[in-house]
Amino acid sequence: MITLYDLAFDKDLRPSPYCWRAKLALKHKGLSWRDEPCGFGEKQKVAFAQSQTYPVVHDGTKVVKDSWAIAQHLDAAYPDKPLIPDRSYAQFVNGWADTAINPAIFPLVVADLVERVRPVDRAYIVESRGKRLGTTDFAGFQAKAREKGVAALRAALEPARRVLKDQPFLSGQAPAYPDYILFGTFLWPRTLSKLELLEKDDVVHGWRERMLDLFDGFARGAPAA
Amino acid sequence: MITLYDLAFDKDLRPSPYCWRAKLALKHKGLSWRDEPCGFGEKQKVAFAQSQTYPVVHDGTKVVKDSWAIAQHLDAAYPDKPLIPDRSYAQFVNGWADTAINPAIFPLVVADLVERVRPVDRAYIVESRGKRLGTTDFAGFQAKAREKGVAALRAALEPARRVLKDQPFLSGQAPAYPDYILFGTFLWPRTLSKLELLEKDDVVHGWRERMLDLFDGFARGAPAA
Repeated sequence: MITLYDLAFDKDLRPSPYCWRAKLALKHKGLSWRDEPCGFGEKQKVAFAQSQTYPVVHDGTKVVKDSWAIAQHLDAAYPDKPLIPDRSYAQFVNGWADTAINPAIFPLVVADLVERVRPVDRAYIVESRGKRLGTTDFAGFQAKAREKGVAALRAALEPARRVLKDQPFLSGQAPAYPDYILFGTFLWPRTLSKLELLEKDDVVHGWRERMLDLFDGFARGAPAA
Repeated sequence: MITLYDLAFDKDLRPSPYCWRAKLALKHKGLSWRDEPCGFGEKQKVAFAQSQTYPVVHDGTKVVKDSWAIAQHLDAAYPDKPLIPDRSYAQFVNGWADTAINPAIFPLVVADLVERVRPVDRAYIVESRGKRLGTTDFAGFQAKAREKGVAALRAALEPARRVLKDQPFLSGQAPAYPDYILFGTFLWPRTLSKLELLEKDDVVHGWRERMLDLFDGFARGAPAA
């Protein structure tokens, strides 16, 4: 029996890109899980894992925090359908998404994010994200960021675009963990905002559509803003 | 018999990161080649290849332009010691180096670059690079770029850093094409400039030292500024 502790916003929105990596990894393995939605203020739920963040996976007697560790755990415990056929590639894409793509998206959706947390988490988010940005005028910050930030994000996606010009998935003919990493990153703004980040004729757009179709439209059917 | 057409600067400096990819790929395969140094103004030398750029490889009856095509040609023609064990990974790193790293380095060394071309190529470079930058005050532009640009480059290297924290090479226990791509990128400023881009305790620095040691110090021994 697997339990997944998944960050939850208001109206049961589930935006966390790191939790999406874990959910998509579980789906890739054909595993089902008990869903445990957790707000920012419910970190006592994952205290048993010595974690301050989501996702956490509780799999039998194994407790695993951090999406990268979860992916490795799943490949070790369920060797069928490898998630990470090439560890170097997966780790490179993981670092790239975390440091080049997620930070490029955050300013573009920060006001939408603040607006959609659970009411009980609002004060915490306003303070922590306000400190990070140096302002609590999230709407103004977001509008300004979008002026150049959408184009900058599209440019930053160029490494993925180069690969996707030649093949349907980042991992080749079928998706694997590098695809789930970047797709999880896109599910974050998709869950929070109506902002369209990609142009329709971008091969990254076509790839994202294929990813939305996976597992009987698992991600496409998730609640979104 | 293989001939490599390699971009040459004054005093036989060979800075081109794309030509380095080809030279390192040839070394990886244990192949030797006839060296054909070419200035910016000598593109007639590669007209037979319908190329406007270096490197070009002439291998028996095969003519191959573009570093990525050269790497693929070498793996097809000399299957021993694969250069590209994972095409997706190599293509991703190729796109990343070309669009996120090379453009971050260019402003940091542009004055050094202009200063070190062959005298006969000076006017062409001043005009083409001046147009790209919107100024011909290369020294002023470079000094200004270095104020924040060195730190920005170090941050942009984070995906490589994450991988190199866990293993000696981007490709695992031994180098392959992803390593040669990024190493070629570092050989470009190394050949042109005394600017140190990396901190000594950075794992990327340690990796670069290992790359400089490869093939009996092949790259370490190349002429540099």
